[in-house]
Amino acid sequence: MNKKYVHGYTKRESVRLVDQATTLTEILHSDTVYPAGSNVLEAGCGVGAQTIILARNSPNAKFTSIDLSEDSLRAARERVSSEGCTNVTFRLDDIFHLPFEDCTFDHVVVCFVLEHLPNPLEALQCLRRVLKRGGTITVIEGDHGSTYFHPDSPDAKKAIRCLIEIQAGMGGNALIGRQLYPLLRKAGYDDVRVSPRMVYVDSSRPDLVEGFTKNTFIAMVEGVKEQALRSGLMEEADWERGIRDLYRTTREDGTFIYTFFKGKALK
Amino acid sequence: MNKKYVHGYTKRESVRLVDQATTLTEILHSDTVYPAGSNVLEAGCGVGAQTIILARNSPNAKFTSIDLSEDSLRAARERVSSEGCTNVTFRLDDIFHLPFEDCTFDHVVVCFVLEHLPNPLEALQCLRRVLKRGGTITVIEGDHGSTYFHPDSPDAKKAIRCLIEIQAGMGGNALIGRQLYPLLRKAGYDDVRVSPRMVYVDSSRPDLVEGFTKNTFIAMVEGVKEQALRSGLMEEADWERGIRDLYRTTREDGTFIYTFFKGKALK
Repeated sequence: MNKKYVHGYTKRESVRLVDQATTLTEILHSDTVYPAGSNVLEAGCGVGAQTIILARNSPNAKFTSIDLSEDSLRAARERVSSEGCTNVTFRLDDIFHLPFEDCTFDHVVVCFVLEHLPNPLEALQCLRRVLKRGGTITVIEGDHGSTYFHPDSPDAKKAIRCLIEIQAGMGGNALIGRQLYPLLRKAGYDDVRVSPRMVYVDSSRPDLVEGFTKNTFIAMVEGVKEQALRSGLMEEADWERGIRDLYRTTREDGTFIYTFFKGKALK
Repeated sequence: MNKKYVHGYTKRESVRLVDQATTLTEILHSDTVYPAGSNVLEAGCGVGAQTIILARNSPNAKFTSIDLSEDSLRAARERVSSEGCTNVTFRLDDIFHLPFEDCTFDHVVVCFVLEHLPNPLEALQCLRRVLKRGGTITVIEGDHGSTYFHPDSPDAKKAIRCLIEIQAGMGGNALIGRQLYPLLRKAGYDDVRVSPRMVYVDSSRPDLVEGFTKNTFIAMVEGVKEQALRSGLMEEADWERGIRDLYRTTREDGTFIYTFFKGKALK
């Protein structure tokens, strides 16, 4: 577990994130539209999977999208320019050392970033500094502990537990969705509103069975197989049963449930 | 565990069910309105906590509300007549031996009943027989496995697990919410649509903290304390910690999440 687990590093991860964004666009982003002329900071843009959605939803807002990884930024730049999007400026910057004056941005948006940080509260405080008074912060995070399914399976739950423990072992927090309300409050934001965005999948929604359960969620679990087995969190036979049982939920009589959390607050 | 665990048998349970219905009315029932003149069968009305809401939402529909318990029916009759509701007829009847002709009812509604039955599929089939072709069935059930909270707590999860196991030990299924889609399909219904109804509670919603987390959910868990300890499912010290940790989630920085499932389908 030397290499830090950050989304977007591998080819498959990159594909997964785009699948995820395409399938979940409406659920997660449809109610985020910034007025013309707004200066919006996107903190931790990664490979740009959310950037392209945000920028398209608010074509007359100006986005500054930052990330710590030059590789991710390169992928993000390519993606955004290949889509003909011209309202995003990318910068190599650190959330914890933002090179901006106090009260620079009209709005701040953070998607799937806090879950990877050992100090999400501090991140929210740093972002608050560069936000104008009266401006909004929007935070979207998952919560792997929100997952359940039919048929139920102890091995599948154990495999998901591996994902949570691996993320915790690297200082992250895969259960952060349910914590957005206290985190935003503690970071000093006002008028905090958290709204859960549940993805409920049954076989009447084959698009979600493919796009979410298989290509987003199960792909993500499968992505930590090596780490889970190497670190002894799970025996290989149990792991294989867990993955098989997750796929079992995608059959005609299966169901699968996961919840994202979206928080919005004011400075 | 000789006595069957059915909601509504004890005084506290009865209060809880009314709390629950009052707090959750909008989340669960606001989109169920039957046209004037409809004949609606409510199967398993219990003490009438849902009956009164259904009957008020559709004042010009005629409800036939059945239950197996004379005591529950008496409480339900009192409640409904004390509210001045006159569009409900109560009958002592068994879902599995319905004394009605085929295709008698325009609509059928079932709330918090299937979770207690060892054979929910058969119940849905029996109800389908008395439903007119083109009529709807509406089913609302909880899912105790959908519960999570912040701060997380192994003891609190274990206490909830007791509730699930006690219900299973009596032939019920406290995880039935996630299974409504395959159950309705398998019972022969068409156009099955399941919509989750999440109750997300943080301290910005003191009404839900009191009305749902404390007075509905934690009260329900506390209601099986004696059974849980007597059957050795949990040690008393762990149980007390679990309950304390559940209350901990109702403080200013806590959150609590539970999901009901509402299925609607056609014959």
